[in-house]
Amino acid sequence: MHHRARLLPVLALLAGPALAGDDVRHQRGMATLDVITGGDAQQALDRLTDIAPELGAWIADFAYGDVVSRPALDLRSRELATVAALTALGNARPQLEAHIGGALNAGCTPREVLEVILQMAVYAGFPASLNGVAAARTVFAARGISPE
Amino acid sequence: MHHRARLLPVLALLAGPALAGDDVRHQRGMATLDVITGGDAQQALDRLTDIAPELGAWIADFAYGDVVSRPALDLRSRELATVAALTALGNARPQLEAHIGGALNAGCTPREVLEVILQMAVYAGFPASLNGVAAARTVFAARGISPE
Amino acid sequence: MHHRARLLPVLALLAGPALAGDDVRHQRGMATLDVITGGDAQQALDRLTDIAPELGAWIADFAYGDVVSRPALDLRSRELATVAALTALGNARPQLEAHIGGALNAGCTPREVLEVILQMAVYAGFPASLNGVAAARTVFAARGISPE
Amino acid sequence: MHHRARLLPVLALLAGPALAGDDVRHQRGMATLDVITGGDAQQALDRLTDIAPELGAWIADFAYGDVVSRPALDLRSRELATVAALTALGNARPQLEAHIGGALNAGCTPREVLEVILQMAVYAGFPASLNGVAAARTVFAARGISPE
Amino acid sequence: MHHRARLLPVLALLAGPALAGDDVRHQRGMATLDVITGGDAQQALDRLTDIAPELGAWIADFAYGDVVSRPALDLRSRELATVAALTALGNARPQLEAHIGGALNAGCTPREVLEVILQMAVYAGFPASLNGVAAARTVFAARGISPE
Amino acid sequence: MHHRARLLPVLALLAGPALAGDDVRHQRGMATLDVITGGDAQQALDRLTDIAPELGAWIADFAYGDVVSRPALDLRSRELATVAALTALGNARPQLEAHIGGALNAGCTPREVLEVILQMAVYAGFPASLNGVAAARTVFAARGISPE
Repeated sequence: MHHRARLLPVLALLAGPALAGDDVRHQRGMATLDVITGGDAQQALDRLTDIAPELGAWIADFAYGDVVSRPALDLRSRELATVAALTALGNARPQLEAHIGGALNAGCTPREVLEVILQMAVYAGFPASLNGVAAARTVFAARGISPE
Repeated sequence: MHHRARLLPVLALLAGPALAGDDVRHQRGMATLDVITGGDAQQALDRLTDIAPELGAWIADFAYGDVVSRPALDLRSRELATVAALTALGNARPQLEAHIGGALNAGCTPREVLEVILQMAVYAGFPASLNGVAAARTVFAARGISPE
Repeated sequence: MHHRARLLPVLALLAGPALAGDDVRHQRGMATLDVITGGDAQQALDRLTDIAPELGAWIADFAYGDVVSRPALDLRSRELATVAALTALGNARPQLEAHIGGALNAGCTPREVLEVILQMAVYAGFPASLNGVAAARTVFAARGISPE
Repeated sequence: MHHRARLLPVLALLAGPALAGDDVRHQRGMATLDVITGGDAQQALDRLTDIAPELGAWIADFAYGDVVSRPALDLRSRELATVAALTALGNARPQLEAHIGGALNAGCTPREVLEVILQMAVYAGFPASLNGVAAARTVFAARGISPE
Repeated sequence: MHHRARLLPVLALLAGPALAGDDVRHQRGMATLDVITGGDAQQALDRLTDIAPELGAWIADFAYGDVVSRPALDLRSRELATVAALTALGNARPQLEAHIGGALNAGCTPREVLEVILQMAVYAGFPASLNGVAAARTVFAARGISPE
Repeated sequence: MHHRARLLPVLALLAGPALAGDDVRHQRGMATLDVITGGDAQQALDRLTDIAPELGAWIADFAYGDVVSRPALDLRSRELATVAALTALGNARPQLEAHIGGALNAGCTPREVLEVILQMAVYAGFPASLNGVAAARTVFAARGISPE
């Protein structure tokens, strides 16, 4: 907040009316989402334009522009944290697969991603971990990779 | 938050084109949050300024400014939906109590709030509903009200 | 309860042994379930007769006869509350789709149903909301409708 | 509840065909709930009469009268299953403690109850199991018992 | 896994004091897992050797060797407890089906398994129970059996 | 597995019967648990000796000895993953507080821990994140620290 509060007037003066806060957030979010999706950020959001375009906008501007882009934690740690959470919750398979891919795109090794999923056996039980491994198998196979 | 709230009108004057997107979102969110909290929006966010002021900003600007303020569904239905979700999840008691109060502040009767909580016995089980009733009892008692 | 306690003896005397409490509950539940399923209440229950007919009976008599039929909250609000809860829980896709249809059958617009699902991004996270949108897409497509 | 409990036997005599469905369900449910609560069924329901007497009625008539009283599985196995589920869900501590007590009242040994809670480390993770053990400790201490 | 299974007896002979702790745990776990899977323990673990062989080892040695093999509760009660927990959690369908089969292999009747699943309507809601019934239908159909 | 399979025969030969697999696991687990608890590993387990000493043994030997000690992912990333999962699940407050402290003990900054908790607003909703912040506030206050 502080940082943003200090930056915005400068940006506003420099860029004129065009670069209001929402633009900054959107551009920042799309850049981060492009790293995570391997360049498919716009296509990912386009899949929502039929009935929920606002959800796509919130994902770009809020989820990735406001939150995941924050520099105080690196993207690799952020994606591992997301893989951990979605493996533990166990109720969002498509998003788990997307973030297993996102962790790889952010620079994690397949082994590191797997370690987080295996660790969830301790904190969320073996069924959650087993289903996380199944998600990893799908993502790894599509990329032709394997751990180690 | 305070800081920004004081700064933004000034920034808006300096930066031209009146209200940038973020200002609109913030003011709209605070107005909705004021309805839900019965006028305590700023105090609610202030409780986060010690270690998580950005979470307060996101609650005002995104959660209430972008999402809950949308006119396509009335605030009463929105608060009942939130009470339903938090009763079913069963893992966020402080927020459940806040939204039971929020539903009342938005114009729901105690009876309507209770009906949603009772209905969760069907969709999330009796323990979830029983704990929702306990939350309602706390909120109703603090206000000196009861259903019917 | 009170009301029922007063009504039942009268009904029993008038109708003889036929209209005991269970019959009233069943008929009331089936009527409500017919609204929600668009006339397919009996077929919905028939799908359970192979191995769990008692579950079908409890759905008709208890879930819809005792709970969802209560007049103190309208069916539209009840279905929106159910859509909210099932989107947030994220672990019951067939039932979520059924109640998205149920909300529409009870008189909600596609837009209202979507708003509740979108709102769950705030209270249960974006993955839950995204999977709720996917469920809505399926139901809307089968009916050839779209929001707005 | 009280009112009905007192009225129903009389009504049954007046209205003919002996026990109507609701009376049978209620009496059966109260009998089972009395085993589980160690004779406190009525007091358990009385705690709901202030704002949610219908929830108490559903617990007696549906939850215990229709479901838990079914003879096809013994009450010990039923209570162990409930302890397993509530330990795994981890979001209903008061009900978990009640059913740990219920399992003991139904004839389970403290050791058997603990075994189910420990087993949840495998299926729902160590935090769920640890909190289940804490619930068991509270119940065992209140009764002055310990496993083995 | 294979590798170790072949190596361990040899190591045990070489290293003296007969069976070290890990061997006992592994053999005990495989024996229990063989009861639950109807003799397919090794095949179940082999499905993990491609990317997560350690998870298979933990399942054999810890989950079944340390926990589920404990004699203080019979395997029938243990499997019913697992079916209860997985039905209530509602986010691990493959494992739920495996343990419905496991309960049958451990000596439960189809009726007993169904009773636990039906009971979850009370403690985790009807959607959880309905999806548990669907899982049971799949398992029962594959075995050509039905309750009672 | 592979690694262990290679190491164990050597250890067994060197150490004789004393250092069987279980000892290695236990010592490795206690060492890791000592880092996470800031030297209180034994005291943490001692709290379980009254009624669930086996749970303490599994935590030391399996959870920390087999899983969390694996060298393929650093302990800082592991603790952040655990904080993410427990914040998202929202049903294990004591363990969440313990692992917020564990992340700090493993070398994470308060800011990094907070970032993971804030990020859960995106993946598990604002209530989960708000309760995670409350847990962090408790831990930070007890240590007299704050983020940044």
